[in-house]
Amino acid sequence: MSGAVEPVTAAIMVVGDEILSGRTKDRNIGYIAEYLTAIGIDVCEVRVVPDIEEEIVAAVNALRARYTYVFSTGGIGPTHDDITADSIAKAFGVAIDVDPRARAMLLERIAEADLNEARLRMARIPAGAELVPNPVSKAPGFWIENVIVMAGVPTIMQAMLDEVAPKLKTGIRMLSETIPANAKEGDVGGPLRLIAQAHPDVTIGSYPFIAEDGRPNTNLVVRSRDPGKLAAAMFDVRAMVADIAMKLAP
Amino acid sequence: MSGAVEPVTAAIMVVGDEILSGRTKDRNIGYIAEYLTAIGIDVCEVRVVPDIEEEIVAAVNALRARYTYVFSTGGIGPTHDDITADSIAKAFGVAIDVDPRARAMLLERIAEADLNEARLRMARIPAGAELVPNPVSKAPGFWIENVIVMAGVPTIMQAMLDEVAPKLKTGIRMLSETIPANAKEGDVGGPLRLIAQAHPDVTIGSYPFIAEDGRPNTNLVVRSRDPGKLAAAMFDVRAMVADIAMKLAP
Repeated sequence: MSGAVEPVTAAIMVVGDEILSGRTKDRNIGYIAEYLTAIGIDVCEVRVVPDIEEEIVAAVNALRARYTYVFSTGGIGPTHDDITADSIAKAFGVAIDVDPRARAMLLERIAEADLNEARLRMARIPAGAELVPNPVSKAPGFWIENVIVMAGVPTIMQAMLDEVAPKLKTGIRMLSETIPANAKEGDVGGPLRLIAQAHPDVTIGSYPFIAEDGRPNTNLVVRSRDPGKLAAAMFDVRAMVADIAMKLAP
Repeated sequence: MSGAVEPVTAAIMVVGDEILSGRTKDRNIGYIAEYLTAIGIDVCEVRVVPDIEEEIVAAVNALRARYTYVFSTGGIGPTHDDITADSIAKAFGVAIDVDPRARAMLLERIAEADLNEARLRMARIPAGAELVPNPVSKAPGFWIENVIVMAGVPTIMQAMLDEVAPKLKTGIRMLSETIPANAKEGDVGGPLRLIAQAHPDVTIGSYPFIAEDGRPNTNLVVRSRDPGKLAAAMFDVRAMVADIAMKLAP
């Protein structure tokens, strides 16, 4: 079965000087990556770009040509440094203006008298885009072709992702099993390489960590879309772990 | 003075399937970004790439051509999925082999008998690279031309960055002042745009947050390398904040 269905891929684009300066620590990349992986979409690349139109345009054009979806976060607020919507319109070569649907969403939360020019910026949507509802604070994101543009504030981004997820094309979910090697990474590297070579359709990752008892340990993560291939690789990995335990036993 | 000295720029490249799958949440981007900003190096772009040689080669070649430095994290351990060193050698078109200096560093911590093929992988260094000492676990990073290759484990990466930092070219430090607007972002957007236009050499960011009393507030961050220009913009921002407080007063 696996291989018959095209994998569904994605890139994440984070827009914001505050991430690049380190002032704000990104919390969206890990969240989106875990979320998409769980629903069968492979995140293949992440880029963080500054609040500079030509940089956003270049990144989104490079990414949307290459992956099934691009998920963008940040830069859709009401101030002068929020330029993501205009940059996306430019990348697609479409017009951008205040969208009556988005304006109506803003009015669910903001009185007409308070809907000043700055706030109306949040209703500027590239022509042809679908809106992504924002159950937290109303100002919507949008979805144009394969690019989904969300807010940078994590609670709002998460709510938008929940709105979008049911409409996404998804692939066969990547299955994953983790087993601790009970050994240092340098002790598993040799035999693990042979197992990886014997199971070319399975991805095997090796992640060292310090266990609670202070000893170095290594998590082995075996991934495949095919349950049979995953089980076959895990069988060999478990045998290797048992073998290493024998060798390391005092 | 500012403008006379060329800014020093950097990109961060994070290598690892485990970040893209969301299994591991990156903690290096924010750390490196804050660290470099503090010493006068502007982080202009971040990319996260998978454990695939051609992807690493393409990313490092794109980034090293564009920025003063590239800081890479991840993929220099002892297992088959650690392919950063080989990929960097390929990107530079140089040979890679076990480096006697790196091997000697490993022997400070690992007995000769335990220096198996897997562990020796950690001593594979592209020809012509300088080593970056690893005070935590000895296996070194390296520095080739403008690319600095560090471990992915945060404690080790941080120690390597401390080793490298004194040798980096640095620019005039970006100065930054933050002032809360005591208003919603939509209330500051209009006047803030005028201030930003009046101070083109200053970068003004606007970051909404929910204050401890539950009220929406907005941090205004003014940045410049020139203390005089920063002070002039801050003067206008403070006046705006006072003006808004008057208008919003009941």
